[in-house]
Amino acid sequence: MRIGFLGGTGVEGKGLALRFAAAGAEVVLGSRDPNRAESRAAEYNEILGRPAIAGMENSRMLFSSEIVFLTVPFDQAPAAIEPVRRHLSDRHIIVDVTVPMRCNGGTPAYQEQEGRSNAEIVARNLPAGIPLVCAFKTIPAHLLGLLDTPLDCDVFVCGDSEEARMCVMETASIIPSLRAIDAGPLETARILERMTVLAAALNRHYKKKGARYRIIGI
Amino acid sequence: MRIGFLGGTGVEGKGLALRFAAAGAEVVLGSRDPNRAESRAAEYNEILGRPAIAGMENSRMLFSSEIVFLTVPFDQAPAAIEPVRRHLSDRHIIVDVTVPMRCNGGTPAYQEQEGRSNAEIVARNLPAGIPLVCAFKTIPAHLLGLLDTPLDCDVFVCGDSEEARMCVMETASIIPSLRAIDAGPLETARILERMTVLAAALNRHYKKKGARYRIIGI
Repeated sequence: MRIGFLGGTGVEGKGLALRFAAAGAEVVLGSRDPNRAESRAAEYNEILGRPAIAGMENSRMLFSSEIVFLTVPFDQAPAAIEPVRRHLSDRHIIVDVTVPMRCNGGTPAYQEQEGRSNAEIVARNLPAGIPLVCAFKTIPAHLLGLLDTPLDCDVFVCGDSEEARMCVMETASIIPSLRAIDAGPLETARILERMTVLAAALNRHYKKKGARYRIIGI
Repeated sequence: MRIGFLGGTGVEGKGLALRFAAAGAEVVLGSRDPNRAESRAAEYNEILGRPAIAGMENSRMLFSSEIVFLTVPFDQAPAAIEPVRRHLSDRHIIVDVTVPMRCNGGTPAYQEQEGRSNAEIVARNLPAGIPLVCAFKTIPAHLLGLLDTPLDCDVFVCGDSEEARMCVMETASIIPSLRAIDAGPLETARILERMTVLAAALNRHYKKKGARYRIIGI
């Protein structure tokens, strides 16, 4: 499975691209501007110490990828699909990692969106037949980029297509010390997104940065 | 701190009473019917192998307790306060452990209540000045009763009175292999209650019974 990134230049995209490339996956960064994608890829490859990540224009990235991470700010995620819509096909799986979180005077708060998760809002914007899977929502973005720190936690994966969910779980499992947990249908994102808000609040309270979850008993 | 139970005859109350008594706390079961409370206490003491738990009528239980666990079904919790309201005073802390969960054809589902957590609904029914603290919501009730199984997880404690929250955290911490996590204001219960639904769904999917949470990185 080749892994593409739509918007891979933020903290989350960078961290995921590095973790997957370090684990041996083929990783492709996409951007509207191919030069920008290439220079980011070069920067990440320097961190990795080898040319494991390619950068290219979004339509080429989609041509070269099966699993596509949507790593943009949560409120830009639904619209980020629009410019590349015609390049999506049923061999793609879109992975949403976004969390609708705001900071109210420093306190992390969940951004209610009429009872729906951001994942469900993104899913409505996808062409029919393209599965959306949620993953990595509860893992701190900056931690992903600290390649020397074991993640040592669970990644909750949910989505309405079981096949796509399994595929993302398998892919996530190539990252060392990360266990993929099947969290069922897309609606579970309503819980997962809120769990991220709790983790952010715990980070703030305990003056830490890497609060994340592990399920005991499974 | 003496620990009382309002409705301690269900699975959750039994498990908590046993865990706290086994850890050396003074535990008092309350009931409208003192005979019922006494016979339950005798039953639990037999499990413990020593007379560590007392049973008495609710008003006496409240006179003898500072921390009072409300261990009744979630939809009975707000009303359970009514008959004992006049026996509550500002030396009491009420602990809510309830989760508004329904099973839809076997699938655990969160019971929406106009955006509010069950904890917030219970809190509105308390006399002014009596703090409500949430704890143990995410820990499987039946697991609490398995005294030979280490809990080996975190208990998330939230509530708007910091003093009451600290007190419940300290009390919970007497249970071995249980770490108390300060989860902030009462509103966090909106997240915690949903996390319990996820844990129940994971139990169902993975054919387990003890799914629970631990925070990594704190």
